[in-house]
Amino acid sequence: MYVLMDIMVSPGGVGTSVSPYVAMCQKIFEDAGLTHTMHGYGTNVEGEWEDVMAAVKRCHEDLHAAGAVRITSHMKVGTRVDRKQTMADKVSSVQDKLDSR
Amino acid sequence: MYVLMDIMVSPGGVGTSVSPYVAMCQKIFEDAGLTHTMHGYGTNVEGEWEDVMAAVKRCHEDLHAAGAVRITSHMKVGTRVDRKQTMADKVSSVQDKLDSR
Amino acid sequence: MYVLMDIMVSPGGVGTSVSPYVAMCQKIFEDAGLTHTMHGYGTNVEGEWEDVMAAVKRCHEDLHAAGAVRITSHMKVGTRVDRKQTMADKVSSVQDKLDSR
Amino acid sequence: MYVLMDIMVSPGGVGTSVSPYVAMCQKIFEDAGLTHTMHGYGTNVEGEWEDVMAAVKRCHEDLHAAGAVRITSHMKVGTRVDRKQTMADKVSSVQDKLDSR
Repeated sequence: MYVLMDIMVSPGGVGTSVSPYVAMCQKIFEDAGLTHTMHGYGTNVEGEWEDVMAAVKRCHEDLHAAGAVRITSHMKVGTRVDRKQTMADKVSSVQDKLDSR
Repeated sequence: MYVLMDIMVSPGGVGTSVSPYVAMCQKIFEDAGLTHTMHGYGTNVEGEWEDVMAAVKRCHEDLHAAGAVRITSHMKVGTRVDRKQTMADKVSSVQDKLDSR
Repeated sequence: MYVLMDIMVSPGGVGTSVSPYVAMCQKIFEDAGLTHTMHGYGTNVEGEWEDVMAAVKRCHEDLHAAGAVRITSHMKVGTRVDRKQTMADKVSSVQDKLDSR
Repeated sequence: MYVLMDIMVSPGGVGTSVSPYVAMCQKIFEDAGLTHTMHGYGTNVEGEWEDVMAAVKRCHEDLHAAGAVRITSHMKVGTRVDRKQTMADKVSSVQDKLDSR
């Protein structure tokens, strides 16, 4: 089952600068070989369900090990069975509508 | 790793009535023996990481099998390493502040 | 335009105990006369669009005034034009399906 | 109060193709003069609180007028009082950590 995910990881109890922790998760997605794109409020990640969820779990485990006592992740998880669709497909589908105006 | 989750499952391509699909997921959480409470915009679920995520995956699989061509789940996933906390603890912690005013 | 909202307010830079801040928002929803129910990962709030959004804004303003340097709110905002529906209607609609099994 | 927002608009009761509706909201953010960037699971929008929220409301109103009987928006809304920060700042802050490894 292929999954398109968006994740925003919020470590708690680490002070006001959370970017080092977010960078740790980016590295995990990268090392897992998952297609991923960061934006201003999270990261789009896509791949097989088991691979994506394993990366999310490792993200929580590594951030706890790095000192984050609490972590809340906000995720959007999408699957479809009618056809294969990538994140890039979703964005270009909207862009096509905008361009044809 | 104990996880407190909130999940809102949105099946697509099934018409305007989504409650039968939401009920299917409630049944899955129940059968998995996970503590769960429904509210107006989702369901609080808590348990061990592997058990909770297996239930979420089964929810997507079963809803696809029941005719939902697309499914998007919106999840909040929280873990903490300083102390054990349940959903009930979180709510009562806020309620205590309200009662002491 | 009647809106069914779910909101989870996350103050940052205030240490590990966020419940006093969450309680402040509960008080704001209460004072605004909005129907609201707290759960383990947020609060369901319903009412007219302008009233609900004014309460959310006041929540950010008051929490900043109380010392939260950063605030992130995660919201679900639902409107419909086919019929009036309350949060209680949504929950009972799913419960009916579960009871009829 | 300056706000960094992420929004994913989900129209219901319009069939499986939602991209024309998403494009309508993009156009609204554009016409409102708000800085906005689309990604695979939503759109980053930033500006003054009143301007951003007015655009969200117009998005719901216009999509209902275009035939969407139900609309659910998933939003992240962030404010901070310690310093001015843009979406681009947030992304580059994480990117800096990745580059310095």
